[in-house]
Amino acid sequence: MSELRKDIISGRWVIIAAERGKRPDDFRPAPVEKIKEPAGFCPFCEGNESKTPREVYALRKNGKRPDRPGWLVRVVPNKFPALTRGIPPVQHEDGIFRWMDGVGVHEVVIETPDHDKELSDLPLYHLQHVLETYKKRVVSIEEEFQYKYVHVFKNKGREAGASLSHPHSQIVATPIIPKKVNEELYGCERLHRQYGECIVCRIIRDETRKGDRLILRNDHFCVVAPFAPRFPFEMRIYPLRHSAWYTSLTKAESFWLARTLRTTLGKLKTTLSDPPYNFYIHQAPNPNLPHEAWANVEESFHWHFEIIPVLTRVAGFEWGTGFYINPVPPETAAGFVRGSG
Amino acid sequence: MSELRKDIISGRWVIIAAERGKRPDDFRPAPVEKIKEPAGFCPFCEGNESKTPREVYALRKNGKRPDRPGWLVRVVPNKFPALTRGIPPVQHEDGIFRWMDGVGVHEVVIETPDHDKELSDLPLYHLQHVLETYKKRVVSIEEEFQYKYVHVFKNKGREAGASLSHPHSQIVATPIIPKKVNEELYGCERLHRQYGECIVCRIIRDETRKGDRLILRNDHFCVVAPFAPRFPFEMRIYPLRHSAWYTSLTKAESFWLARTLRTTLGKLKTTLSDPPYNFYIHQAPNPNLPHEAWANVEESFHWHFEIIPVLTRVAGFEWGTGFYINPVPPETAAGFVRGSG
Repeated sequence: MSELRKDIISGRWVIIAAERGKRPDDFRPAPVEKIKEPAGFCPFCEGNESKTPREVYALRKNGKRPDRPGWLVRVVPNKFPALTRGIPPVQHEDGIFRWMDGVGVHEVVIETPDHDKELSDLPLYHLQHVLETYKKRVVSIEEEFQYKYVHVFKNKGREAGASLSHPHSQIVATPIIPKKVNEELYGCERLHRQYGECIVCRIIRDETRKGDRLILRNDHFCVVAPFAPRFPFEMRIYPLRHSAWYTSLTKAESFWLARTLRTTLGKLKTTLSDPPYNFYIHQAPNPNLPHEAWANVEESFHWHFEIIPVLTRVAGFEWGTGFYINPVPPETAAGFVRGSG
Repeated sequence: MSELRKDIISGRWVIIAAERGKRPDDFRPAPVEKIKEPAGFCPFCEGNESKTPREVYALRKNGKRPDRPGWLVRVVPNKFPALTRGIPPVQHEDGIFRWMDGVGVHEVVIETPDHDKELSDLPLYHLQHVLETYKKRVVSIEEEFQYKYVHVFKNKGREAGASLSHPHSQIVATPIIPKKVNEELYGCERLHRQYGECIVCRIIRDETRKGDRLILRNDHFCVVAPFAPRFPFEMRIYPLRHSAWYTSLTKAESFWLARTLRTTLGKLKTTLSDPPYNFYIHQAPNPNLPHEAWANVEESFHWHFEIIPVLTRVAGFEWGTGFYINPVPPETAAGFVRGSG
């Protein structure tokens, strides 16, 4: 019999319907579709800087000019943005309909000039620079308070939603706190009152003690397969030091985060034969905003990474109910991932 | 500039980021992946009745025996069920972890004995029988009150989550009211208080008057591209007669629903070159349950179909935020669909 499990923070139930005796290879995605790109041309490659909008940030050797070669990490506005910069939008109402201008920020973080590298192939210092770049951009965008939430995420592979194969991540700032972040904020606030401590600090302690869903732990971070995951091999990276904001990351911590992320992505690649994946950061909203609704956000929220390999398809059951059917218990997934690479 | 739109019932915001000048063909899915099946064998085909669990219902000619050929529509338990029948499950707690046995129902509705037909190819009387079968099964499952919600849905095509190509839909009954249904119930209850009438009745009136998102309307149903759709070409079928439960469908209405569904699926097929799709029914929870939480559910909730063609990929932005980026405004989608077939 399968098991129903509740994610304590979001209140979401998932169905863990183990297909027994399966090996990780059985969850390997269908042969990965190659992203079709015009041969010999990639707007993210070194030398093609003029093919993107003008850079908003780049890490380059001293004296090198913007929008020219000689960079390590480069951030540009998305050429086809979902949201565009502007003044704080007004919510319009016409009877039962509500809308506002699509004001926001949409940037691309080009992680390396090298088209054929992957995030998990980069040397540690380089990966650390990518993580520091996320932080710098978030801090800069948050200076404008109309951007209530800044979402950092990566889609790797076509099945995971990437349209270009050159390694990149994205940053989208929205004029509204996203629904899922709101749910987590409220859940964490409620649980902080109930347990008298941050629920994620509690999860880290309990998962470390139990050990069966713990994938790795070092002095600054731990990686866990969550108790009620939506997807097979879903993982979380939690910082051991409590903080609501990714932007509180210290230099020492970004080095350890680079190590942790590289090991985790490397293990994912080995265990599941290089699957497409998504990852994103969850953190508290723009700290420059008044946050009456989450008076306690600093104590109750705990920033983290969520990593989702794309192995199953979401269908009519999930879209209609918000339940997820996950064929791999997180204890099984953690065991496979822990043992690999 | 794109537009942010709010779904008034769920409170979900979507980003309508129109890619101008595109034709419906531009949203055509990648060449549809064929579902690989062992040649010459399908457990849902007539003659292979012994390959499925024993049928729980079938529409057959008088005098024909169960689990033999001679049926028009056949319902069997799912051979690999997500949930299985049992006594009302107890919620277990261990510290911060919550779970229960996976008690529920998981059935397959085989829509036709003919492997190569599609739901939208069936003659009207046959499609009406499929819709009547949904109703019969829901009524029967709801006799057991541990099944709080019965979800009827269809996945067509591999990209939409189907693992067999023989035309079928599924029924899953859960011991918990699903999160998304709960959100709609609460939203409709709140809006019923605010507007003094069912919000869906109001939506039907407003969309009929405006007309730009209306796809079709007959004496009993209307088809609408919703104001804030998550996905390109998402559609809703609303019954004009207010009712919270699909199971209130009369014979006359099931005939008109068959016509409406067939026309809608036919138009989808023509406009988007036969895309994979999901549809599901949203209705109020099991009426045999006490429903204190939605005292007013009968007046405030309005059952309907939601239809989602699978044309885009959900990625790190959507998973992390609950926002959706939709490149096709519903007014454009409605125009294309209305004009087709």
